[in-house]
Amino acid sequence: MTFESIPLPDVADLAVGILGGTGDQGKGLAYRFARAGHRVLVGSRSTERGEAAAAAIASMIGVTGTVSGAANPEAARSSDVVIVAVPWEGHAATVASLRQSLAGKVVIDCVNPLGFDAKGPYPLRVPEGSAAEQTESLLPESRVCAAFHHVSAVLLSDPTVERVEQDVLVLGDDREAVGVVCALAGRIPGMRGVYAGRLRNAAQVEAMTANLIAINRRYKVHAGLRVTDL
Amino acid sequence: MTFESIPLPDVADLAVGILGGTGDQGKGLAYRFARAGHRVLVGSRSTERGEAAAAAIASMIGVTGTVSGAANPEAARSSDVVIVAVPWEGHAATVASLRQSLAGKVVIDCVNPLGFDAKGPYPLRVPEGSAAEQTESLLPESRVCAAFHHVSAVLLSDPTVERVEQDVLVLGDDREAVGVVCALAGRIPGMRGVYAGRLRNAAQVEAMTANLIAINRRYKVHAGLRVTDL
Repeated sequence: MTFESIPLPDVADLAVGILGGTGDQGKGLAYRFARAGHRVLVGSRSTERGEAAAAAIASMIGVTGTVSGAANPEAARSSDVVIVAVPWEGHAATVASLRQSLAGKVVIDCVNPLGFDAKGPYPLRVPEGSAAEQTESLLPESRVCAAFHHVSAVLLSDPTVERVEQDVLVLGDDREAVGVVCALAGRIPGMRGVYAGRLRNAAQVEAMTANLIAINRRYKVHAGLRVTDL
Repeated sequence: MTFESIPLPDVADLAVGILGGTGDQGKGLAYRFARAGHRVLVGSRSTERGEAAAAAIASMIGVTGTVSGAANPEAARSSDVVIVAVPWEGHAATVASLRQSLAGKVVIDCVNPLGFDAKGPYPLRVPEGSAAEQTESLLPESRVCAAFHHVSAVLLSDPTVERVEQDVLVLGDDREAVGVVCALAGRIPGMRGVYAGRLRNAAQVEAMTANLIAINRRYKVHAGLRVTDL
């Protein structure tokens, strides 16, 4: 099977929830999925802030999908697929609190546990191995994948950027869920969703964000990754 | 400074030693540097096997540089830049034994500490953090960088492949040494050497090889990485 010949599901009708949708990464993803025509639910700890972010996104150039805001549990319940984009601090507590709302759903963790000091960014140790594996351990009834770690919030949120030219590495043990996530990534023009291993190989994908930040600082760019020979 | 505007040193005259040059990765790199016109020293535990590998590489299509074989210590001493491409098993012992031969030199670790089980590849825990940091701890008089982790030995060794279209992530704390390594990567047509952080961020670059293997298996390719927006 070549990359192009692997069939992916039609995900155009899926409602995408984004927990922590008021952060830079979450807002950027919400915008891109709304621009791709998806119904998007922007989740926040506070309903008001979720609604404010949703209104701001809905008014952006090119948005054709409906964008609404809600508290995280409501955003989780009302979505078909849910992206976890909350800060690493509080990740475990937020995810654990949503176990019932997220049961049975495809949950995509895009969180990068990073620290920063005078020498720049570095990956934090995570007892479960990675943020994604922490989520998997806290959501045994959900179908947990990891993806969207490396997409620049700056590019995602810039309405003049029509194509986000990079690949999204998708990790997961549930092959059908991985297909959904790969298809979702492909809804953003320029992006491809590429299966890149089981969830136990998520730690280095999360940590690689530190390297991309180092690249950004050295070369003044918004670096992403493209998989070659694919 | 944009990527293209950052000046790199002229490395055309540097002799490149490859420790473990009889393995797939080492042989492939030896071939590419010999094809780029470098003097290449293929190191092995045994002089005879180093010489046999060197003779095989010297006879390959497009080689313009001199290729000679030697035992690892002699290959290290006679080279300007030395690539460590030995198997992870024995990495520490081999590197430690070459401390004096490698003193003062730019040493490039390209080793990926990986395990394999029924579920595929996964990164091994390394007490020092990464193979590259292990090398740094064992070679306090050398200038240790990490690079060339993701280049497919199959593509490197295929004489019909004229351009190896991918980027090489270069890690290191010694800015001048990083420049040498970036320039060396750029000697292989299609490749760019990209600074991607300090050595403490090498672990995830090494571990990412597990993800590339997963991609190779799923899509039947020889995957590498290209940094976008650069």
